Amino acid sequence: MTETPSKPAATAGAHTGSACRVALIGFGTVGRAVAKILCENADRTLRLTCICNRNFERKKQPWVPSDVTWTDDVQAVLQSDAHIVIELIGGLNPAEQIVRTALATGKSVVTANKQLIARHGPDLLQLAASHGCQLEFGASVAGGVPVLPSLRTGLCGDRLHGIAGILNGTCNYILSRIENARIPFSEALEEAQARGYAEADASEDLDGGDARAKLAILALAGLRTRVTPETVRARTIRTLDAVDFDYAAELGCTIRQISRADLKGETLFSDVGPCLVPTDSPFGRVQRNLNLVLTSGQYGGDMTFSGAGAGGDPTAVAVVSDLMFVAQNIASGGGKKVVASDVSTAAISSDFETPWYLRFFVRDRPGIVARLAEILAAHHLNIDSLLQKPGFDKSALPFVITLEPCRDSLLHPALEEMAKLDFLVRPCLCLPILR
Amino acid sequence: MTETPSKPAATAGAHTGSACRVALIGFGTVGRAVAKILCENADRTLRLTCICNRNFERKKQPWVPSDVTWTDDVQAVLQSDAHIVIELIGGLNPAEQIVRTALATGKSVVTANKQLIARHGPDLLQLAASHGCQLEFGASVAGGVPVLPSLRTGLCGDRLHGIAGILNGTCNYILSRIENARIPFSEALEEAQARGYAEADASEDLDGGDARAKLAILALAGLRTRVTPETVRARTIRTLDAVDFDYAAELGCTIRQISRADLKGETLFSDVGPCLVPTDSPFGRVQRNLNLVLTSGQYGGDMTFSGAGAGGDPTAVAVVSDLMFVAQNIASGGGKKVVASDVSTAAISSDFETPWYLRFFVRDRPGIVARLAEILAAHHLNIDSLLQKPGFDKSALPFVITLEPCRDSLLHPALEEMAKLDFLVRPCLCLPILR
Repeated sequence: MTETPSKPAATAGAHTGSACRVALIGFGTVGRAVAKILCENADRTLRLTCICNRNFERKKQPWVPSDVTWTDDVQAVLQSDAHIVIELIGGLNPAEQIVRTALATGKSVVTANKQLIARHGPDLLQLAASHGCQLEFGASVAGGVPVLPSLRTGLCGDRLHGIAGILNGTCNYILSRIENARIPFSEALEEAQARGYAEADASEDLDGGDARAKLAILALAGLRTRVTPETVRARTIRTLDAVDFDYAAELGCTIRQISRADLKGETLFSDVGPCLVPTDSPFGRVQRNLNLVLTSGQYGGDMTFSGAGAGGDPTAVAVVSDLMFVAQNIASGGGKKVVASDVSTAAISSDFETPWYLRFFVRDRPGIVARLAEILAAHHLNIDSLLQKPGFDKSALPFVITLEPCRDSLLHPALEEMAKLDFLVRPCLCLPILR
Repeated sequence: MTETPSKPAATAGAHTGSACRVALIGFGTVGRAVAKILCENADRTLRLTCICNRNFERKKQPWVPSDVTWTDDVQAVLQSDAHIVIELIGGLNPAEQIVRTALATGKSVVTANKQLIARHGPDLLQLAASHGCQLEFGASVAGGVPVLPSLRTGLCGDRLHGIAGILNGTCNYILSRIENARIPFSEALEEAQARGYAEADASEDLDGGDARAKLAILALAGLRTRVTPETVRARTIRTLDAVDFDYAAELGCTIRQISRADLKGETLFSDVGPCLVPTDSPFGRVQRNLNLVLTSGQYGGDMTFSGAGAGGDPTAVAVVSDLMFVAQNIASGGGKKVVASDVSTAAISSDFETPWYLRFFVRDRPGIVARLAEILAAHHLNIDSLLQKPGFDKSALPFVITLEPCRDSLLHPALEEMAKLDFLVRPCLCLPILR
């Protein structure tokens, strides 16, 4: 069903000539914020012509000019005369088909869809290039923090070899809450849900699925490496306990969900999950639901970007910025954007060499430390420190061993051997320590 | 004098077809680093054809391919078939004439010259647009930190109303050294000079001339406001004393040279100089000679960017990134880049409303605080705190009064009255406190 505008808008006069016609599919929080920016800043380069959403009658806003067509018919939008389609419905289906159809008919696409780009980014970029149009996805990682645009502009002259970030605001909200209030994980999660920072089923956030999709996009754009998200190891933050923040503090650290990718030769080392980070490091200082990305380049060294990683308005800024970039290319007669044809594949490994934090909950009895130390020694692993805070229940006593740097692959067999010990009341928690 | 290459380079085969020909004028630290990146990453989009410098024979490098022409003749470069000229000689003369000539003959220009862009940016952009070529200056502010590229890409969809930054690495090196070692200003300056972070005559850095040129460029690119650098108030950091860091610490603060511009209606509030900033704020944490820029937008909120603001390699990344941007536009047949025609002028004011830190050095005697308090009261200024640390010589006793927020214009008459007091052994130091 499509509703034809009843009368020309008051601002229609400004919307002539070379304006890019823009159709918006998906009028949720971000879509609404995008429409608001476009309507409030109407100029001659971008003209919102169409908004597509189910049950659009209930979504209508008084600030949308009357010459904008409201519809629930995606096919009509795809067959319209729009130059650019904004895809903001998220998920893989039907978003993928919408984006493919738009690109195949020569319409450029701007999207915030991280799952779609993480999975099909290289193919879709190829499809866009072969039809002389553009695909931009600056909003798909870190919301309004302009990391992706910087990778294609201000940092493209460098050779990046590493990217690390706090890419999931939900995890960071929960972890910084536990850090500051020492509340249990479950309480911090409930609080995040109550405040709208976490969904009812927060598995994608807590278990790293969301962050590794974003890491795959950053690896594509910044390291020019094609990464299938599922090949990146993702570790959950659900196993953390408030006491881990006490022990981390003893080590001058706090805990954050870190997503990292380091390109070394033909191997991409990557990992998503909780890590100890120094309290006074850029990562350690990130509070609430903010995002931070650190890029490491051969020439420019380390750069950090931080800001609001989510939310309607900041994400909309990224979408509108992409729209303006595409519109400029169309206006200049370009549009034949050079696709990074040098995207390569790499072996994916999570076998970082790093110091480790091992936290045990044990039924206390003599000989426990000796037994653990014996296993570690048998695997040639060096203990760096042993921490045991007083005042805990002997039936579930938490203590920590830190290890000197070693590869994950060396540590793993030792952890498997430890898992069989009958004095453990929980599986050993094992976190990398980033310095 | 121009030297013709003796033989074709081994890589010449790759340098055919649509490669952009690039001529480099100025082979100093940055120019050398730019050439290195171009030679190490030779591809089909950028081809270094010419390097121009006085006494080039002494500058020659073995890693420069033999098909690159070395010359000291600027006019020959300007008349060559280069598509893009990189201007890295700095200063206003003859850089301005070189850039104007290049643009007028349809050659795009990439420059790191902050003084040139701060003074003539709007005119030169106009000149470039009228000749269908481009002028890029991403390296002119904050070296390799991609702030300027982000303003034209990832943040262009926002409406920025404020920009603040640590833009001068020399000042930040000196201030963070005094903070950490409590050495006198003169000693920190000498150390910065010995380490190559400050020039023999560091006036441009210390007195704010360098930073306000960069602020003018950020205001042009981010706030679309034309600012003549000299109209921005610049306060020196030379008047700071190590004791100011003791008193700042009492207030949970440290001291940094901050450059800030806030657009409010038709007025641009701007200021460059030392400010108290909270120790745990993004500004307070910037150490050594790093740079940090914070942008504030109507939609996206606050974003921070930080990294190496100077140095050959990071600055060269910004230059090469600009080169790639221009080359892409040329390759796509564009080049008719839309110039921000909506650059406006604004009234420039330094009359911020802010809390203040006033530090006095006095010959101690009874009644001093009463006299100062009397003057402040007469000017309707509210004292927020009074700090006096013990253990100082009574003949030059430092103590501090902080004031509740008030406009600079209200405070100024009170300061003038205080300047006449016979018990002051140094002029009162007056610093804004940023929260």
